[in-house]
Amino acid sequence: MAVKVAVLTSGGDALGMNAAIRAVIRSGLAYGFQMFAIFEGFRGIFENKIVSADRTFVSEIIMRGGTILKTARFPEFHDNDVVSKAADNLRFYGITHLIVIGGDGSYRGAFALSKHGIKIIGIPATIDNDVMGTEQTIGFDTALNTITEAVDKLRDTSSSHHRCSIIEVMGNRCGDLALYSGTACGVDLIISPEYRPSEEEIIETLKNINLNRARHALVIVSEKQYENLDDLRKRIVTETGFDAKIEVLGRLQRGGSPSASDRVLAGRLGVYAVDLIANGIDNVCVGVINGRLSHQPIAEVTKTTNPNLDELLNVIDKLK
Amino acid sequence: MAVKVAVLTSGGDALGMNAAIRAVIRSGLAYGFQMFAIFEGFRGIFENKIVSADRTFVSEIIMRGGTILKTARFPEFHDNDVVSKAADNLRFYGITHLIVIGGDGSYRGAFALSKHGIKIIGIPATIDNDVMGTEQTIGFDTALNTITEAVDKLRDTSSSHHRCSIIEVMGNRCGDLALYSGTACGVDLIISPEYRPSEEEIIETLKNINLNRARHALVIVSEKQYENLDDLRKRIVTETGFDAKIEVLGRLQRGGSPSASDRVLAGRLGVYAVDLIANGIDNVCVGVINGRLSHQPIAEVTKTTNPNLDELLNVIDKLK
Amino acid sequence: MAVKVAVLTSGGDALGMNAAIRAVIRSGLAYGFQMFAIFEGFRGIFENKIVSADRTFVSEIIMRGGTILKTARFPEFHDNDVVSKAADNLRFYGITHLIVIGGDGSYRGAFALSKHGIKIIGIPATIDNDVMGTEQTIGFDTALNTITEAVDKLRDTSSSHHRCSIIEVMGNRCGDLALYSGTACGVDLIISPEYRPSEEEIIETLKNINLNRARHALVIVSEKQYENLDDLRKRIVTETGFDAKIEVLGRLQRGGSPSASDRVLAGRLGVYAVDLIANGIDNVCVGVINGRLSHQPIAEVTKTTNPNLDELLNVIDKLK
Amino acid sequence: MAVKVAVLTSGGDALGMNAAIRAVIRSGLAYGFQMFAIFEGFRGIFENKIVSADRTFVSEIIMRGGTILKTARFPEFHDNDVVSKAADNLRFYGITHLIVIGGDGSYRGAFALSKHGIKIIGIPATIDNDVMGTEQTIGFDTALNTITEAVDKLRDTSSSHHRCSIIEVMGNRCGDLALYSGTACGVDLIISPEYRPSEEEIIETLKNINLNRARHALVIVSEKQYENLDDLRKRIVTETGFDAKIEVLGRLQRGGSPSASDRVLAGRLGVYAVDLIANGIDNVCVGVINGRLSHQPIAEVTKTTNPNLDELLNVIDKLK
Repeated sequence: MAVKVAVLTSGGDALGMNAAIRAVIRSGLAYGFQMFAIFEGFRGIFENKIVSADRTFVSEIIMRGGTILKTARFPEFHDNDVVSKAADNLRFYGITHLIVIGGDGSYRGAFALSKHGIKIIGIPATIDNDVMGTEQTIGFDTALNTITEAVDKLRDTSSSHHRCSIIEVMGNRCGDLALYSGTACGVDLIISPEYRPSEEEIIETLKNINLNRARHALVIVSEKQYENLDDLRKRIVTETGFDAKIEVLGRLQRGGSPSASDRVLAGRLGVYAVDLIANGIDNVCVGVINGRLSHQPIAEVTKTTNPNLDELLNVIDKLK
Repeated sequence: MAVKVAVLTSGGDALGMNAAIRAVIRSGLAYGFQMFAIFEGFRGIFENKIVSADRTFVSEIIMRGGTILKTARFPEFHDNDVVSKAADNLRFYGITHLIVIGGDGSYRGAFALSKHGIKIIGIPATIDNDVMGTEQTIGFDTALNTITEAVDKLRDTSSSHHRCSIIEVMGNRCGDLALYSGTACGVDLIISPEYRPSEEEIIETLKNINLNRARHALVIVSEKQYENLDDLRKRIVTETGFDAKIEVLGRLQRGGSPSASDRVLAGRLGVYAVDLIANGIDNVCVGVINGRLSHQPIAEVTKTTNPNLDELLNVIDKLK
Repeated sequence: MAVKVAVLTSGGDALGMNAAIRAVIRSGLAYGFQMFAIFEGFRGIFENKIVSADRTFVSEIIMRGGTILKTARFPEFHDNDVVSKAADNLRFYGITHLIVIGGDGSYRGAFALSKHGIKIIGIPATIDNDVMGTEQTIGFDTALNTITEAVDKLRDTSSSHHRCSIIEVMGNRCGDLALYSGTACGVDLIISPEYRPSEEEIIETLKNINLNRARHALVIVSEKQYENLDDLRKRIVTETGFDAKIEVLGRLQRGGSPSASDRVLAGRLGVYAVDLIANGIDNVCVGVINGRLSHQPIAEVTKTTNPNLDELLNVIDKLK
Repeated sequence: MAVKVAVLTSGGDALGMNAAIRAVIRSGLAYGFQMFAIFEGFRGIFENKIVSADRTFVSEIIMRGGTILKTARFPEFHDNDVVSKAADNLRFYGITHLIVIGGDGSYRGAFALSKHGIKIIGIPATIDNDVMGTEQTIGFDTALNTITEAVDKLRDTSSSHHRCSIIEVMGNRCGDLALYSGTACGVDLIISPEYRPSEEEIIETLKNINLNRARHALVIVSEKQYENLDDLRKRIVTETGFDAKIEVLGRLQRGGSPSASDRVLAGRLGVYAVDLIANGIDNVCVGVINGRLSHQPIAEVTKTTNPNLDELLNVIDKLK
C-alpha cells in the first residue's frame, strides 16, 4: 500500500511556500506515494481540512505569492489533547508522514505531533531567516529583493528633499533582513539587534554625513528596536540638518512573486524532504549548511548562529 | 540676443519631473534660447542657485526619479520683498521667462513672480492629480502603477491569513489616487473625500464579503480621512470576521522610474511650454483638456473638477 | 425575461482584456442581465464553447495577463454559412447581444455577425493601438511600459560596451509603440512607418552621436520595416564607430500584469458597453475620443488617424 | 608609502560589477591604500586610461547596471610585448596590485600580467556562472531573476494562444542559467549542454503535454545548442498540436539593477579581495566554496564542476 504523506504550511507566509508545496507533492507522486494537502496549518489537521492532492492540484502555483494552503494561528495546539486528536485525524486517513513548511513555531507544533507517532519533516520557510538548522530560509531572498527595490525607490525622492529616510524592515528578533538589505543598498546606517549604535552615535554619524554634503541619508532599522521610533526621527530633524521621515515597509515584504533563488531553494528542499522519507529518514528538519542540503533531528536542532555574520559585519564596517 | 529662460521644480517631487526638465531645456535650445536651471525651487532664485544648462546637463535623466533640480519649502516667498528680490536676481542674469514645474502651491509662487515682471509658464507635476487647468498631472500615472503593484502584492498574503488589508494612499485632499487605484485593483471598498461611506456601511460591507466566503478583503483609503485609522481597524477585527492590518504606502508612492505615459506627458508639456514662449504667449499654465494640450491664463484658472469623476464613480458602483 | 449577453476576446491577446471581461460581466449582472462567456473567440461560437458566467467567474482576474477566455484564429469565419451557423448557436441560448473585445479584425467578425441579427458592441483591445474609433486601445499603455523598462535595461549594458542597441518593437503597421516608447526613452533614433529616415541619414546620425562622445546609441524600430535588419546592423558596425546588436523584444510585449491605466480603461469601456446595451444602443464600437468615452456605428468607423501624431512628431523633433 | 591598488572590469558586463568596484575601492581606502580605477579593461592599462579613485568616485553606483569602468575586447593582450608594456604602465603609477573583476577570459589576462610582476586578485563576475574557483559568480542571480520574470510574462500569453514558447537564454557553454531558471519556472522542458534530450524525445514530451490538455508549453533552451532552432520550432507546430514561437531574451539578461543577493556577494568578494592584499596574499582568485569565501592560486584553479549539479538534475527529474 502506498505511503501516505501530508503537507501543510504554518506561521507567517513566505514567498516560495507554494513552490515548496508543489515540489513536495510532485516528488511524492513520483515515488508513488499518496499525497494529501492540509489547509490552514495545524488547525486544519484538528478541523479535518484535509484533501487528496494530485499533479494538477499544484499546477501554475510555482510563481504565486502567499500559500495556497493558507496558514492560521492555532494556540490551542499547545494542548496535548488537541495534538492527540490531530494525530488521530491523520491516522484516520492512513497518513503516516507530515511535511511542515514554516518557521520555528511550526517546528514546535511538528515536534509535538511526532510524539504522537506521526513522522514529520520540517522545511524552513520564513522571510526572517531565523530558523534553526539552516543558513537560508525559503522567502528570505525575495523579501531582501523587495526591501532593496523599496530603498532604491526612496533614494531619489530623499535626495530631492534633502531627507533622511528611516526605513523599518521586518525580521522579528533576527537582524538578517536589515543587515543584508542594508549591505545591498549601501545605506548609511543599519540598526539591528546585532548592530545597535547608541542614539548619540546615530546623530553624530548623520551630522557628519550632512557636513560631507550628502544629498540624503538612508537608515535601515529592524522592527521592534524602538518603543517610539518617532522620537529618534524628531532628534534627527532637530540635530542633523536633514529632514527625516519614517517608512514602514510592512507586509509588502511578504508580497510579490518569489525570486528565482527562493523557487529553486523551495524545489530542492521539497524534493530532498521526500527523498528522506523514501529513504526511511524522518523526524528531521532539512536545510542548507555550508551550501549543501542537510538534515538534523528536529529534537536536537537549535538556532544555528549565522556563520557568515562576523564576515558580514566586517563588510558593513569596511564599506560604511 | 537670445531669449533667456529658466526652469525650476517646486513642491513635492513627482516622477517625470526630470523628463519635463529635459524637454524644456532641449526644446529651448532647439529654439536658440539660452537656458538656465535653478536648484531648490523658489528658494534657489532668492539664494541665486542659478546655472546655465546645455544639452548634456539633461543627459540620461529621462528615466530617473526625483528631480535633479531638487525642491525645497520656502514659506518666506509669501513676503512681497522676497519675491521682488527674487525677480531682481533673475533679471541680473537677463532671464525674462521662468518655467515652473510643480503643483498648485508652485503656481501661486509663479503668479507672485509674474506680478514683478517675470513671464511665467506653469507645468503641472504632482502625484496627487489635483492641479488646476489639467485633467492629468505629471507623476499621477506612475504613482497609480506603484500603488497598484503594491496592492497586488498584498493580495496573496492577505488571502493566506484571511485578512482585510487597509491600504492608505496619498492624494492630499484629492481622492483620485484612491479612486483610480481602487478601480485598477478591483478592491472591495474605496474611502476617499469624494466617496465616503459611514463606518456602519464599511463594517456591513466587509461582513457581507466575509459571509460570501471571500478569502480576503482589500480597502483603499485616502490619507487624512481618519483621525485614527487604527480605531476602524479594530472594529473590523472585532465585527467582521477578518483579521485586519493597516499598510501605509508612504513615500514609496513618489519613487521609482517614471512610467512611459508620464514621460511622454512630460515631454509633450515641456515642449508645449517652450513653443508657447516662442509664440509670445506667457503667464499661462499648460495642461491636458479633453485629451489635448491646452493653456489658460494662470491668473484665471481654478481647479478643474475632474470631468470623468461621475463616470468613474459609476464604474466603481457597477463593479463593486 | 433577462437580456442575455455574451462576451468573447479575439485576435492577439492584450493586457487588460481580463479586466474588460470582468467589467462587462459584473456590470451586466448589475443590470440583471444573464451573462455568458465564450471561449476561443469566434471559433468558440461556432463550436459552442459557451458558458454561463457569474460574479465569481471573474474573481481575481483583474490583474492577470492574457485572456481567460483565450483567443484563436478562425479564418473560416469569412464564410457566410459559418457566420450564420454561429448566429444560430447564440440564438439557441437566447443570446441577443455579443460584446467583442479585440482589434480591427475582431470588429470585422463582429460586423459579419451583426448582419445575422446579433446585436454587437466592440471594445478595442490590442497592444498596437491601431483600432478604429478610439484614441487608445486596452493594452497599449502596458506594452509601452514593458518596452520602456526593456530599453532602460539595455541602456547600461550598451554603455559598458560602447554599443548601439537596435530594439525591434511590435506595432503591426502602426508606429505608435515605436514613437511613444522612443519618446519615453529619449532614444537617439526612431524608425517607424510614420517616421522613416533613409539608411544614409541613420548612419550619419549615429556617426555624429559617436563623434559627440556618447557612450551608447539606442535605436527603436517598428517591426516589418526591414527585410533584413541585420544588414543595417552591419553597416552601423562598419561605418559609425559603435558596436551594434539587435534585440527583438518579441512576445514579452504582450506579457505581465496590466498597468493601472489599462485596467481603468478596461473597466470604463466595459461598463460603458453594457450601459449602451441597457440604453438600447448597439452595433457600435466604443472608444475614447478627445479624452471622453464615445461610440460610433461599427459599420461606419474607419481608422481614426491619431490626432496627436503631428504634435508627437514635433516633440520627437525638438528633443532629438 | 601607501600600497597602490588598481581595479578593472573585463569581459561581458554582469549586474553587480559596480557594487564590486565600490567594495574594492571603499575597503582599500579603509586600509589606507591608494586606489586606482582603470577604464575599458586590459586595453585601458595599455592605453593608460588610469585614474585615482576616492570615496565619491563610487557613490550612488551600488544599484546601477553595467560597469562604470566599461569593458572592451582586447585580443592584442595575447601578445607578450603588449602585456609587458601594460605592466610597465602600472608600475609607472606605482601600482603593485591589480584586482580584475570578470570571467575566465579575464583571469587569463590577469595571469599573464602576474608573470610580469603585477600581483593580481581575480573576482568572478559573469551572468553565465562558468568561472573556475567559485560556486556562484556575481551577476548570475540577477540574470536568473530576469529570465524568470520573462518566462512568467510569457506564460499567460502562451496560454491565451495554446502555444509552446521556446525561450533561448544565455550561458555560453554552461547550462546553469537554463537549468536554474527552468527549475524556477517549472517549465516543461529544459535543453542545455548538460541535459540534452533528442528531438524525438522533445516532440514526444510536448505531444503528451498537449494530450494532457495543458493550455501551453514552456521550453527553455541554452544558446548555441542548435544550428537552426527554427527547424525544431516547425516540427513542434507540425507534430505536437501546439503553435510555437521562439523568444530570444538577448541582452535584456544583462540589464536592470542587481539583485540584493548579487550586491551582497559583490560586497563580500570585494572586501575579501582587499583583505587578502592586506594580509600579503595575492595571485589568487576569490570565490564561494561550500557557502564560504575562499581563494585559490590563480595558476592552479580549473573549472569547478558545479557540486550541486547532480542534485539539481534530480530535482528537475522529480518535478517534471
